[in-house]
Amino acid sequence: MEGETNQPELKIIGIVEGDILSLGDAPKGYGESERTGYLEIFAEFHEGLDGVEAGQTILVLFWLHESSRDILKVHPRGKKENRLRGVFSTRSPVRPNPIGVSELKVLGIDGNRLHVQGLDVLDKTPVIDIKKKI
Amino acid sequence: MEGETNQPELKIIGIVEGDILSLGDAPKGYGESERTGYLEIFAEFHEGLDGVEAGQTILVLFWLHESSRDILKVHPRGKKENRLRGVFSTRSPVRPNPIGVSELKVLGIDGNRLHVQGLDVLDKTPVIDIKKKI
Repeated sequence: MEGETNQPELKIIGIVEGDILSLGDAPKGYGESERTGYLEIFAEFHEGLDGVEAGQTILVLFWLHESSRDILKVHPRGKKENRLRGVFSTRSPVRPNPIGVSELKVLGIDGNRLHVQGLDVLDKTPVIDIKKKI
Repeated sequence: MEGETNQPELKIIGIVEGDILSLGDAPKGYGESERTGYLEIFAEFHEGLDGVEAGQTILVLFWLHESSRDILKVHPRGKKENRLRGVFSTRSPVRPNPIGVSELKVLGIDGNRLHVQGLDVLDKTPVIDIKKKI
């Protein structure tokens, strides 16, 4: 590792409850999913949800725990030319830090459970952040 | 920590070279910056940049290393009502995982140095991911 910074450790703030149980069952393109499910936010982070409301679109960051971290080139989906590209020019889940960024619609909130639409990640995927969408 | 997942460790893939040297000098609102600077990507991740080109807008994830990780409520900027809100309903850099998501314009590329516009983070901020913008 170069640079002065130590490797930071992520805190898992919650977990996905969804119906995508295998990578083969996951939506093939970014932003194509209408799948609904839940984000279960752990009790210690519950306070951070104040102001998140049904009807909003939120930006959710996931830790794509089943993705390889050691591959820097991929064949992107749906490209006519199938040459290898650097992962940083794609949305591939494969990358040194497999963080997924999704826009989800909040359908409802029940305590620390967010009912959401637009899920394209596996059941039990760790949630690492939620942000206001700009 | 709840759940079965261990706390994942991030890999720093590069570092910002910019002219924002203190938090007081940082742009006040998300998406308001025209500041230019560089993303210096470390040699071991260079291959991942293949396909990133001048003229593109890219999504860049930063590790906001000077932000507090222990605060769950903030007074958002620019709101008329100044009540405390949960960090997950804001774009505050303060949050359990202080990851910033910015859209930057690529002005040029020289090897593993990306010249970018739109920087709103401190000089020397660690870069953790680059994605295609959808």
